[in-house]
Amino acid sequence: MTYDIAVDIGGTQMRAACFEHDSLAPLTVHRIATQGPDCSPLERLIQLIESCWPKNGDVVGIGVAAPGPINPYDGVVIDAPNIPGWENLPLRQHLEDHFHVRVAPGNDANLAALGEWRFGAGQGFHNMIYLTISTGIGGGVIVEDRLLLGAQGLAAEMGHITVIPDGPLCGCGQRGHLEAIASGPSIARWVEEEINNGVPSRLCEKLPLSAKDVSSAAHQGDRLAQAGLARAGTFVGVAIADYLHIFNPSAVILGGGVSQSGPLWMDPLRTALREHVMSPKFLENLTVAAAALGDNVGLMGALALTRSNTLK
Amino acid sequence: MTYDIAVDIGGTQMRAACFEHDSLAPLTVHRIATQGPDCSPLERLIQLIESCWPKNGDVVGIGVAAPGPINPYDGVVIDAPNIPGWENLPLRQHLEDHFHVRVAPGNDANLAALGEWRFGAGQGFHNMIYLTISTGIGGGVIVEDRLLLGAQGLAAEMGHITVIPDGPLCGCGQRGHLEAIASGPSIARWVEEEINNGVPSRLCEKLPLSAKDVSSAAHQGDRLAQAGLARAGTFVGVAIADYLHIFNPSAVILGGGVSQSGPLWMDPLRTALREHVMSPKFLENLTVAAAALGDNVGLMGALALTRSNTLK
Repeated sequence: MTYDIAVDIGGTQMRAACFEHDSLAPLTVHRIATQGPDCSPLERLIQLIESCWPKNGDVVGIGVAAPGPINPYDGVVIDAPNIPGWENLPLRQHLEDHFHVRVAPGNDANLAALGEWRFGAGQGFHNMIYLTISTGIGGGVIVEDRLLLGAQGLAAEMGHITVIPDGPLCGCGQRGHLEAIASGPSIARWVEEEINNGVPSRLCEKLPLSAKDVSSAAHQGDRLAQAGLARAGTFVGVAIADYLHIFNPSAVILGGGVSQSGPLWMDPLRTALREHVMSPKFLENLTVAAAALGDNVGLMGALALTRSNTLK
Repeated sequence: MTYDIAVDIGGTQMRAACFEHDSLAPLTVHRIATQGPDCSPLERLIQLIESCWPKNGDVVGIGVAAPGPINPYDGVVIDAPNIPGWENLPLRQHLEDHFHVRVAPGNDANLAALGEWRFGAGQGFHNMIYLTISTGIGGGVIVEDRLLLGAQGLAAEMGHITVIPDGPLCGCGQRGHLEAIASGPSIARWVEEEINNGVPSRLCEKLPLSAKDVSSAAHQGDRLAQAGLARAGTFVGVAIADYLHIFNPSAVILGGGVSQSGPLWMDPLRTALREHVMSPKFLENLTVAAAALGDNVGLMGALALTRSNTLK
């Protein structure tokens, strides 16, 4: 029997799963905190993978979804936010030296795109865009059945296009990026600012707000919260129109917590998309769908990676 | 001896050239007006190609750069602006029926990208963005040595991303696109508006303005004209930063008349690019260069297309 191991590393926790080589159902899934008192995140990662290692048989490869920018060609983590010391970390080399199998690392948002394309809502589409909209906005792109990587593997920073010149500050340090307007925290921030400007809302007693606060108030009829979701959905719709003009995909897959906000977010998104596309041709045969893999998308993307030749 | 024929169709004129199969120097280049009194543009095109046909030997294929959206998979011109009757025109079929050789058509901006990549300033780069900035803004993208086409061949409409929400009207009917801010006519329009707002300029006696008027006044020291070029360069720089985040290319090639405006346009572009990129990583090993093929870029792109397997 042969096996694949998939790993999803986050700033808070990391998970590893072992799959029989022809199966999508994990035999084991283990989860630990990324940081702990006695050993480094890298040592914890190695212990986690060891805990999933099959007793008999061969592991074919390990796929690893890592947060932040990573060079998929040499396997070096450039800078993992929230993991101290993971700067220019040769992750692939460390893991290959330890486990003596092929290790394929990738950026988590890119691998989520790969996972949705291979196993989820994007199956069968040759040209696909995946956006994940939660605390940040990230994504990945499939171009003719291949993951878009770019010269250094930094491509598909889909949340970091300027949609309002000199707009709100983005987590990346720039201004007016889509992420700074339409991520969960950005929605909450806009609603807070409107409350501070005197706009009435039942949320005025809950400051500071989370995106969840805004979403539940919106569903209870709060006008300002509804406007906040609609505004964010509209900007995402305009950005998707841009992405249709750039990539002309046949599918757009939407993941992340904000994308589950329902029609109060999705209807303005669809309206903006329809109104901002330069020709109806771009909407012909276009599928816009919710991501299908939920919390498993990182693991399934890492599995897709180690099973594919997408990253050589 | 075997030959390739390359054709570049514009709204005003069309050109055809015949090349020996291993040569980049055309044996013949013929040029005629696209429209004339006695026969249709398609008939004129066929006569033009016949006029270049070699007396002896075999033609391997014909590459055709056509204006406006074209489906490169089935060779149908969807809508060629300025050529009456070219709507849903099966161009490839017409030409293959007449000439009995393989015909490869493509959008002119996409093929300009392919031409610069194969024969011009983009040689040797595996991931490249080409922008042409003149009356409109178009472009093409090379992803891992392949031309980005998209599901229906409509990809790389690089001038049609929203850079100012609800901004000026774009030629495509939408608002606030890069083309509506930074193309030649858009630069002239902005300067005219500023003059109408009372901003002093030596151009106030020349209305209506062309982009050339603005460029020469800028080089003669006119402050408003200089501001117009700088504003346009800045927006192009911000858009290129977006494109770096999306594609992470190793080269950005700039063509079209506006891109020849010199430092008054290029310096603000470079400043904006440097200031708006989310990480200096995206600028490492990045080449930003002027297009090299000049007016021949359409013909050379058509030649590259018929010689390549990029479009199957």
